Amino acid sequence: MLAITIKDVLEAQERISRVVKRTPLLRSSTFSEWSGFEVFLKAENLQKTGSFKFRGASNKVMSLSPEEGRKGVVTGSSGNHGQAVACVAARFGYGATVVMPEGGSPAKAASIKGYDANLIYCGTTSQERLAFAEKLRKDRGAVFIHPYDDPLVMAGQGTAGLEIIEDLEDASVVLAPTGGCGLISGIAVAVKEKKPGIKVFGVEPAGSNSTGLSYRNGRRTALDKIETVADGIRTTIPGELTFPLVQKYVDGMIEVTDGEILYAQRMLLERCKLLAEPTGAVALAAILSGALARFTKGGKVVALLSGGNVAMPQLAEYLLRTGQNA
Amino acid sequence: MLAITIKDVLEAQERISRVVKRTPLLRSSTFSEWSGFEVFLKAENLQKTGSFKFRGASNKVMSLSPEEGRKGVVTGSSGNHGQAVACVAARFGYGATVVMPEGGSPAKAASIKGYDANLIYCGTTSQERLAFAEKLRKDRGAVFIHPYDDPLVMAGQGTAGLEIIEDLEDASVVLAPTGGCGLISGIAVAVKEKKPGIKVFGVEPAGSNSTGLSYRNGRRTALDKIETVADGIRTTIPGELTFPLVQKYVDGMIEVTDGEILYAQRMLLERCKLLAEPTGAVALAAILSGALARFTKGGKVVALLSGGNVAMPQLAEYLLRTGQNA
Repeated sequence: MLAITIKDVLEAQERISRVVKRTPLLRSSTFSEWSGFEVFLKAENLQKTGSFKFRGASNKVMSLSPEEGRKGVVTGSSGNHGQAVACVAARFGYGATVVMPEGGSPAKAASIKGYDANLIYCGTTSQERLAFAEKLRKDRGAVFIHPYDDPLVMAGQGTAGLEIIEDLEDASVVLAPTGGCGLISGIAVAVKEKKPGIKVFGVEPAGSNSTGLSYRNGRRTALDKIETVADGIRTTIPGELTFPLVQKYVDGMIEVTDGEILYAQRMLLERCKLLAEPTGAVALAAILSGALARFTKGGKVVALLSGGNVAMPQLAEYLLRTGQNA
Repeated sequence: MLAITIKDVLEAQERISRVVKRTPLLRSSTFSEWSGFEVFLKAENLQKTGSFKFRGASNKVMSLSPEEGRKGVVTGSSGNHGQAVACVAARFGYGATVVMPEGGSPAKAASIKGYDANLIYCGTTSQERLAFAEKLRKDRGAVFIHPYDDPLVMAGQGTAGLEIIEDLEDASVVLAPTGGCGLISGIAVAVKEKKPGIKVFGVEPAGSNSTGLSYRNGRRTALDKIETVADGIRTTIPGELTFPLVQKYVDGMIEVTDGEILYAQRMLLERCKLLAEPTGAVALAAILSGALARFTKGGKVVALLSGGNVAMPQLAEYLLRTGQNA
């Protein structure tokens, strides 16, 4: 039995539409000319809190009863998911606790504190953080919000897929990055159930390709090493609830290199004036690198830009690094 | 007699709507919270060729007879206007010649050549370039396209103003940067003739404030020195055709410093994931610096982001420079 159906995604859309942004679907003439596809960008980097994670977090938080809300929410991610949870919890007046790794990024901590969430530093591994979050859940009755393996979170992410097909009925391909697979699973359900003719591909870094590996093996397979600049999708294994949806709905998995990711990030900024974090440029990298063209030719292709949260000194470093070969 | 009326702007909209992008009007929660206004951004940095200049250039080029078109177009700007002219001329199969200063930016030259325009290097002052362009006009019958002092160009720029009031009927204030005043004159006609209750302010750098000076003096007044990071509006005097429209329609002129401009540029990138060139961040700087609050309080305020063409090494330098005080 699959974790979500199209009905869940449609309900999510109805629930969250008054709080999430309907992000623009932007056509790029330059990328279209370069690639031989007609290229569209679903700009979830312009979503509230700077990533698509706000959709799933909103759907989860808005499904809580007032009583559950009063006990607060907790999560173990200090990245885009943590920011999204903190922001939407604040909006509904619920307490939020984010468990961060010791020595975690001060910029991320500042951003989460900006939403009045409690920050707790705990350990350095995600296991330690999740164990602590679990303890909070038991002790206080706080609701734990998983970054991907939660049906409400997955259905929320899928609303980006509904918007894509509403705005571009005759799309041929939709591309999204994969890590824990919360985004791709929601989008795949939305797109394939509504428009079975549209192909959905997942894209991941060659150095963090657990979804592709699992997809080819026909079962969830863990990596023992992750090496990629795309820090939003450094996941060793796809989710338990998400992966069966990838197996059922996704048409193929594509790999891109770190160099291709940073090149796509730079071109997005230079040509389209849009800032993506490296993870946010992964789907576009599949187009600009020529990788997608090995699967399919021509037609209208949508690359989902998953997020734009990158610290400015880090961005300056990427620009100087990629500029050396430009 | 004024150079354009609302009728010209409406005609421009009808003429160019199939080639220009309808750019999104994006609400920023962060800037709204910071400023006490409800802040909207008209993202002309997402326009084709990366700036609003594509509107005016399109309106001019699409007004040419086939015979005029065959003789080609010429302009003396190597910046955003030159790119816009080159792009729209190529689209209609007309020859374009762009007269650039000797020693001009190789990045801009490459971009203009990318649109198959002829590049001619001539002198170092804009007088020399304009004289050369005038010679081409006489010798070949090529149509000269002025960057602002041309009614068709002004009316084209005004279409951005129509879109703003269509998308946000109850706006209180519209802010746009001023240089030669092609943009502000077109926008002011559009906004004030359709919605007289909306205030229109021009914003310019303190080191390049010829429009404010002229506005206060009641006549066009030239500066003998220009010093600003906003390289798109280093203009010593507002236009002959544009300035009377500024006098008639604009509610006030606001000054911002280079520091405020670069801060706004950085915040746009960091918080809104949008790249603006310094000139493109001038209108927003009036909001974030508190300068607008000295003129009016509260309400829905639109800052027009005029363009996003900035070379990546230059951007890296801005980010490192502004980061030192962050």
